[in-house]
Amino acid sequence: MKFGGTSMGDLERIRRAARIVAAEAASGKKIAVVVSAMAGKTNELVAWTDGAGPAAAGLPLSDDEYDVVVASGEQVTAGLLAITLRNMGLNARSWMGWQVPIVTDDAHARARIIDIPGEKLGAAVDAGEIAIVPGFQGVTPEGKITTLGRGGSDTSAVAVAAALSCPCDIYTDVDGVYTTDPRIESRARRLAKVSYEEMLEMASLGAKVLQTRSVELAMAKQVPVRVLSSFIEPDESGQMPDKGGTLICDEEEIVEKRIVSGVTMSRDEARITLLGLSDRVDAPADVFTRLAEANVNVDMIVQSQARTANTVNLTFTTGRRDAVRAAELMTAGQDQLGFEEIRIDEDVAKVSVVGVGMRSHAGVAQTMFKALADKGVKFQAISTSEIKISVLIDAAYAELAVRALHSAYGLDAI
Amino acid sequence: MKFGGTSMGDLERIRRAARIVAAEAASGKKIAVVVSAMAGKTNELVAWTDGAGPAAAGLPLSDDEYDVVVASGEQVTAGLLAITLRNMGLNARSWMGWQVPIVTDDAHARARIIDIPGEKLGAAVDAGEIAIVPGFQGVTPEGKITTLGRGGSDTSAVAVAAALSCPCDIYTDVDGVYTTDPRIESRARRLAKVSYEEMLEMASLGAKVLQTRSVELAMAKQVPVRVLSSFIEPDESGQMPDKGGTLICDEEEIVEKRIVSGVTMSRDEARITLLGLSDRVDAPADVFTRLAEANVNVDMIVQSQARTANTVNLTFTTGRRDAVRAAELMTAGQDQLGFEEIRIDEDVAKVSVVGVGMRSHAGVAQTMFKALADKGVKFQAISTSEIKISVLIDAAYAELAVRALHSAYGLDAI
Repeated sequence: MKFGGTSMGDLERIRRAARIVAAEAASGKKIAVVVSAMAGKTNELVAWTDGAGPAAAGLPLSDDEYDVVVASGEQVTAGLLAITLRNMGLNARSWMGWQVPIVTDDAHARARIIDIPGEKLGAAVDAGEIAIVPGFQGVTPEGKITTLGRGGSDTSAVAVAAALSCPCDIYTDVDGVYTTDPRIESRARRLAKVSYEEMLEMASLGAKVLQTRSVELAMAKQVPVRVLSSFIEPDESGQMPDKGGTLICDEEEIVEKRIVSGVTMSRDEARITLLGLSDRVDAPADVFTRLAEANVNVDMIVQSQARTANTVNLTFTTGRRDAVRAAELMTAGQDQLGFEEIRIDEDVAKVSVVGVGMRSHAGVAQTMFKALADKGVKFQAISTSEIKISVLIDAAYAELAVRALHSAYGLDAI
Repeated sequence: MKFGGTSMGDLERIRRAARIVAAEAASGKKIAVVVSAMAGKTNELVAWTDGAGPAAAGLPLSDDEYDVVVASGEQVTAGLLAITLRNMGLNARSWMGWQVPIVTDDAHARARIIDIPGEKLGAAVDAGEIAIVPGFQGVTPEGKITTLGRGGSDTSAVAVAAALSCPCDIYTDVDGVYTTDPRIESRARRLAKVSYEEMLEMASLGAKVLQTRSVELAMAKQVPVRVLSSFIEPDESGQMPDKGGTLICDEEEIVEKRIVSGVTMSRDEARITLLGLSDRVDAPADVFTRLAEANVNVDMIVQSQARTANTVNLTFTTGRRDAVRAAELMTAGQDQLGFEEIRIDEDVAKVSVVGVGMRSHAGVAQTMFKALADKGVKFQAISTSEIKISVLIDAAYAELAVRALHSAYGLDAI
């Protein structure tokens, strides 16, 4: 079981989470719990490390000490949940990242889990103890504290479940994965099941239910993950009502296949266009090498003929946070790259349809283009994978496009 | 070097502490720093553990999880000080209690340090690294987090100094140990040196400069401890001005012996009187056995003849927090103990004079009694040790008595 920052936000919410844990324990399950820090707490700790000053040029980075400070947030909630459960008469104990241990590499502030020797933890859980593990934190083989980067608690939860060979229930402030964001389309439906691949596309395309890396790990380790609401409470008899939720699992386990499972939307995009770029065959490669070396991820790419002879216009998209840096890189290399003008447009949105059924069905793209055209939505770029189609459009049309596609693929609730 | 909670209270104060550390490092010293949590933070964490609920009867105590929660406060300041020092160009690193390790027994929430293997920490410090150690926390031989009880950071600092065979500078919000509390007697003087024994008496008698256990440890391990103000800053050239302070050291190192070094006052006293207690020879033993078994410490004891035949009045003092429990214990045993009435008086204060010179000088007590009598202060009980005399008086006279004694023993600043 994993509880996020909202579910750990204060003592009353911690007690509610404890009641859900108790109900699960009462049903005979053996349980490990992964917890986030209290909502807002991690931001406060990060602000303090910022206030202690960004390292001046030439000085060593302090990411290892950032980890020491920031990891404390989950330590607090792990201890508090253990106390709360004991006061309900349950056998519970917290296990810090270094006690389990949750072994990570030494990429401080963005570490990756490399191993969780599950024997000690598993023996404790088997013996009937509810093990509480702070999410987000780990320890290097040399014994230094690490953190996994923001949102890392989901990854911790899946990794602990993998180490214990058990399924992973993620309790959060939504009750499952929806066909699209219900705040945009009120007819959105909760999906009972969704495949790892679909969830991965949805997570990376802007559905904020789960952190991408946690879904990758669940797929790699074949951990069944359920997304559930932490606002559902056991009734007076201590029984949990039907919890609904969404199971994220292997494609084979989904009997009723849909062509499209969901429509996602992301505003975290920026479009950069290089006008009048030389039509040398290696010019685009030069552009994308410079971006890759600076760790700027590029998503969509479109090249079109320019009006000037021997030049092209090259358009690409990046995450919005990377846009300024990408533009600086291009401007710094303007002489070598040989383009005439650069334009940045942040007033764009990416709308995508995702579904494993696309693999075996033709006509998915046509449906998309027709639905958008019917509403007068023009698209500026397209990218596809085996199970998704994304279009870049004017941000003003984003919600309209989402609703049009949701309806066109028959996802609207009746 | 040790910095308390006030000196770690916010980022600006942490920067000031860092400047003091940097000045010491610039003078060529090799340094380990022990830090407290931000002032107020430990109280917040303790309140959360209280809010998570005191264990109901029959349920296991959660002191181990209390330690997990509360130890996080020092973890945060250790990391923040390390970041701040690095940003000043210094080589610094935090060492958690479990990383050093600071090995304690498993008396959670009030653990005692049993060993600090200083090799790893010492090697790092010798190699020029400023080692930052969170105070107050440790780890059991089994690898569970412990805390030392309130004020434990002083003890951590002395223990780390002992492990590294170096002196211990305690930076705090006062600039040394005074002949008495300057808020009571403005003519109080800072002592340049004070012996371990004197400091121990003063600490346990109400001078709140250092935690008693830290002084005991310093005496046992012969660690020279200096109490210094953390409000003194290096000048523009990075040099520290004369820091003053008080050195707590072996009696032999104090050349100029004083008969009395200080006058202390404590209101944390309660007086309990059993009227008409049986004069059976074992009745007082029965009283004090009951109190000892309930861990109630008794300080002063006076027995006097009662008006009723075959009975005595027995008066004793306890810490104020223990008074209600002591009274309950007495009342519960009233039939067996056989007394007529119990009275509790919390309107009392204990005033004491402390000095190693008493060992070799007669007339110390007379001076005390005469000075009090001259001001019309009656005393209700007396207790003495080799180097101190304490009297219990009406609380209303406490400050008057302190000033009278400070003057009578020639401690007033000229």
